This record gives sequence, structure tokens and C-alpha cells, in this order.
Amino acid sequence: MENWFSKEGPEQDVVISSRIRLARNFKDFSFPSLADKNAQQKVVDLAVKGALESGIENMTYVSMKDLPDIEKEYLVETHVISQDLKKSKLNSGIIVGDSSVSVMVNEEDHLRIQSVLPGLQLDKAYEECLKYERASVLQQNYAFTYEFGYLTACPTNTGTGLRASAMVHVPALVISGKINSVLDSCGKLGIAVRGMYGENSGSGAHMLQISNQVTLGQSEQEIIASMEDIIKQICVLERRARTALLESKGIYFTDRIYRALGTLKSARIMDSKEGLSLLSEVKMGLDLGILKGASTEELVTVLTNVQPACLQKMEGRVLSPEERDQERAKVLRESVKNIE
Amino acid sequence: MENWFSKEGPEQDVVISSRIRLARNFKDFSFPSLADKNAQQKVVDLAVKGALESGIENMTYVSMKDLPDIEKEYLVETHVISQDLKKSKLNSGIIVGDSSVSVMVNEEDHLRIQSVLPGLQLDKAYEECLKYERASVLQQNYAFTYEFGYLTACPTNTGTGLRASAMVHVPALVISGKINSVLDSCGKLGIAVRGMYGENSGSGAHMLQISNQVTLGQSEQEIIASMEDIIKQICVLERRARTALLESKGIYFTDRIYRALGTLKSARIMDSKEGLSLLSEVKMGLDLGILKGASTEELVTVLTNVQPACLQKMEGRVLSPEERDQERAKVLRESVKNIE
Repeated sequence: MENWFSKEGPEQDVVISSRIRLARNFKDFSFPSLADKNAQQKVVDLAVKGALESGIENMTYVSMKDLPDIEKEYLVETHVISQDLKKSKLNSGIIVGDSSVSVMVNEEDHLRIQSVLPGLQLDKAYEECLKYERASVLQQNYAFTYEFGYLTACPTNTGTGLRASAMVHVPALVISGKINSVLDSCGKLGIAVRGMYGENSGSGAHMLQISNQVTLGQSEQEIIASMEDIIKQICVLERRARTALLESKGIYFTDRIYRALGTLKSARIMDSKEGLSLLSEVKMGLDLGILKGASTEELVTVLTNVQPACLQKMEGRVLSPEERDQERAKVLRESVKNIE
Repeated sequence: MENWFSKEGPEQDVVISSRIRLARNFKDFSFPSLADKNAQQKVVDLAVKGALESGIENMTYVSMKDLPDIEKEYLVETHVISQDLKKSKLNSGIIVGDSSVSVMVNEEDHLRIQSVLPGLQLDKAYEECLKYERASVLQQNYAFTYEFGYLTACPTNTGTGLRASAMVHVPALVISGKINSVLDSCGKLGIAVRGMYGENSGSGAHMLQISNQVTLGQSEQEIIASMEDIIKQICVLERRARTALLESKGIYFTDRIYRALGTLKSARIMDSKEGLSLLSEVKMGLDLGILKGASTEELVTVLTNVQPACLQKMEGRVLSPEERDQERAKVLRESVKNIE
């Protein structure tokens, strides 16, 4: 599967990634949590047939029960699967291939088709999802009514079944306190804002996930266009806040960025939260041209690589928390050594 | 005048410098604060005669009123003159030459003869002071009684007029909290302990000035020998504490030292207190062999150079506090760039 985070994308100084998720269910089977073993297997079979028909190269189904824990954790960290799928006791799995598209099977819905792309590319990510979603073997079987649209296990997804979201990096809005009015506006527009890893996580890395709440009463194109508009506005506000910080705080702002870099270059032990937070400052320094020596996509790759399961996958073994923190410090030192 | 801080000395991993000060007054004149202009001038004349007779090369008298403020501040920072002499309204000055000896004239006493040497060398510093103190033109005129010894403006200096002190760098005793029992013991032994710049200063740089309180009832040799003993014990305790920290905290301790170095290598603005505190950690790292690339005396030179007046003297002009903090960060980056 392609790593979205190692590629260049539009508006990447602010928008880390764009993600489209389509929820789909088949009309002949109960939703996964209520489906029996037989029905669950039939859903898997249908999903695999869809993959073959999609035309996406090398699409393969992997059952959750065949995946080692570290691999599952890695897929969570890289946003390919959800925490729920990781813990699922059902006959569930993922389909991945040579594209940005992945499909969770028997998660909350029968199918959760998603595509993640770097930068702001919601429309492109939607098109990618459709390559799989449009397979006729699937289309014939979707639970769909003209009144409600696509039916889903949770009514909040009913209608388009579409969730369009973007991960935005807004350190200057956070530092300057201007983020609050952005959050207010998002709330009024029916836009959900969360920290980096879903509902219960903080935003120490100054990353926010922005997504639509309403899936009903608007077309897919309308939802995506409106999300792109809002995200572009956030980009403008964040860039303005960065320039304002640089102008008003001058040397203190520059100092803060260089100190973050200095700590990354020298620490011997570092937890995940601190690492992300320092990388966030360094990314801003690179975006503003204060620092040189790495591209935004290289920084985002580092952001991903220093997560616990990614570190363990690179090392090829389970690490104790202290070993992880040491390994993280080592990876970070290596990753930022050419930045100045 | 020689810079004590740029030379190597014994026990320099813990003892930054040794200082001997002898208070002397002339019997025919009132103490400086009560002496009239005429008497003050005669004291200066006698002090200068003593300099000529001392045999120390190039001894020169410089009147305080002829010194620019930055120079005065520089002499305070390098411990050549006291705050009191800097502010003095009397006809006062200093005598310096090609040795470690300097003489404050018309400070609290007519003469304050001092020698500062790197590392633990109280006996050597005392010998240096005697080169000036033994000049016969001075000896003939000292206020001395067989009952009290040398008479001084403040009775706490009466007797030997000797203050033997050492600046010790004890980061591990401070970090481990063991410093408190050392301070207790010093108190019981009649040893005064102060922060880096006298009574009212903190010890952010983990530097303590240790000096004798009693000047009466013991010979100079006894005072010096007892101070050297105590300081050597502190060296042993500090080294033991460093090793213990390294063994018990391991990577966390190493991490702390590397982070201090990383901040020094990258900050763009830094106040004096933080600079000293970070240099203190880096010095400990060098002393313990964790870091390489600079000698202790090089580090102590940096410690001295980043003080406000030293910075201004190097720049050749008065700097605003913000300019100083930027200049300090620049000097520090340059100074530690080869340490790894």
C-alpha cells in the first residue's frame, strides 16, 4: 500500500493529509455487530469480489486475526484501520492494494472504504474511493433507499455515508490563541474538530482533524466542496498567524523554533508527545523558511515514524516504553541532523 | 593582568577557582570611609610605592574615576573588584600587573590584596599575595597589634585579615539534594557558603563560593590548610554524587546533559541565568567524559565571557538587555559548537 505521508501534496504547509471515508452496507445481511458467522463471511466474500472487480492492482484481503499486534498498531498509527477494527472480535479484515484506497470489512459497517492523500486533495481522495465503491458486484447489493440514501449502522452516517476530513497543522493559530475563534466557527458550520488521534487525544503536536458532521441532505460534491472551502480558509488564517508571530515576536519566535530543533538533535530519550510537539515547531520553521534542510513530506514521514508501533516495526521487535523513548530520540536525531 | 579563568588548575572538575584576600590598613590614616582627601591620597601613594617595591612586573595603579562603567562592570564580573569599589565615591582604585595579584585601594580597608588562581591553589594564591604584601614600605606602616593582629575596618576581618575562598561547581550535589548536608557541615565548621556573586545571588549555575568566616585565633597556614581539607572533601562528595547520578539515572542523566548542550548550540536568545545553568550541565558532562570537545578551562572561560559586561567589552559598545541576550546566545553557540 502507498504511504500517503511520504508524498508531496497541495497546501502541505498547513494540510498534512486529506481523507475520504465511505460507509456502505449490503442489504441482505445484518449490520456486522448483529450478523452471524455465516453472514459475516458472506460480507467478506462480497468485499473481496469488489476488490477483484475494482481494477486496483494487487488488492488483497487480510483478516484481522492473522495480523500480529504490532502490525495492527502500525495500521492504526498510519490511519489505515480504526481502534475499533483493531479490537474487533468479528470476522473482520482489511483490503489494501497499489493505491491510496483501503477497505475495512465488518467494522461498524460492512464496508468502510477510505483513501488518504497528502495535502488538501479531498476530491481526488473521493475519486479514489469510487474506484472500489463503483464495482458492480457491490453496487447491486448496497443497502440504499431513495428516501434515506445509504443506510448505515449508526444513523449519523446515513445518507451519503461520507466523511471528508483533513489533518491540519495549525501551530501559529494555537500559539497565538486564535484557534478558539476558528473552533467556534467550525462548530457553527457543523464541522467536527478533534486532536490528532480521534476523540480522546490531545493536540500537543498542534494537529487538528477537521471533518464534516452532516452526511444527509447534501450531495457528496457539496460536502467536499464546502469542506475544501473551510480548510482553505484555515490555511489562510494559519499562514497569516505565522507571519504575524514572526513579525511581532521576531527573535523570540525564531529562538523557540531553533531550540526545538536543538532538543531534537540532541536528546537521548523522548516520549511521543514531546517528539510530536517539537517536530511541529520544526515543521513550522521549515514552512516559514527559517529552517532549511528537509521537505514538509520528510517531516511528516518522521512524525509518523516515531509513533510507538512504527518504531517497533522498524526495529523488528517489541520494545519496552523506555527502549521506545530511546529509539525515538535516536530516529529523531538522525532525521533532523541536516536541518539548520 | 592574567586571566585566572583561562588556565588549567588542580581539581578543576569541581574547583573553578581559589581566591586569597588580605585586608591591610596603614596605622597613620583613618579607615577609608573616615579618611579625608589628603589621607586617601597618601594611602594611594603608599600603595603605589608598595607595587614598585613588590618586584611584580608592570604593576600599575588605575583610579576608579578614570575607568568607564563597562570596564568597572567587567572587573566585577571577573572578580577583580567588588561591587563596593565599583560604586565608591572615595579616591579609590586598583593596582594590577603581570601576575594573579590585584590590589583594591581605599575600598573598605586601605588595601585589599587578592590573588585568584584556577582550581584548588589556595596556598599558591597566598604566596602570590605575599609578594605584594611583604613590600617593606607597606610592612613598616601596617596597623598591627600583637593582641589583635592586623586591624581592619570591619572587626570580622581583624587578625589575619585573611579570606580564603574557592568557587566550587557542585551540580551533582545540588541535583541529588545532597548539598544540604554539605551546607550544614560547613555551617558547623564556621565556613560561609554563598552563590556565585556574593550574598544575594542564587546558585543557578550550581556554583558555590566557600570561604572562611574566622580570621582571628588561627594562623594563615592553619586557615588555608583547613579550607583546602574541606574543599577536597567537597570534591570527593561531588565526584561520588556525579558517579551515583550517572549510575542510577543512566540515560535520563545523559539525556539532560545532551539537551543542555543542544539548547546552547541552537538558542537565538538567552539570559545570563539560563546560560550559566546550561553551561553548568555541559561542564559536568565534559568532566564525566560523556561529552568531548572542550577542556574545563575553556568552559570556565565561556562562563565568564557570557556575563553582561564581558559581552559588551567584546562587542566594544553598550548593549540593550535584548541585544545582550542575543549576543550571549551567539557567543554560546560558537563556544560549544565542537562539543559532542
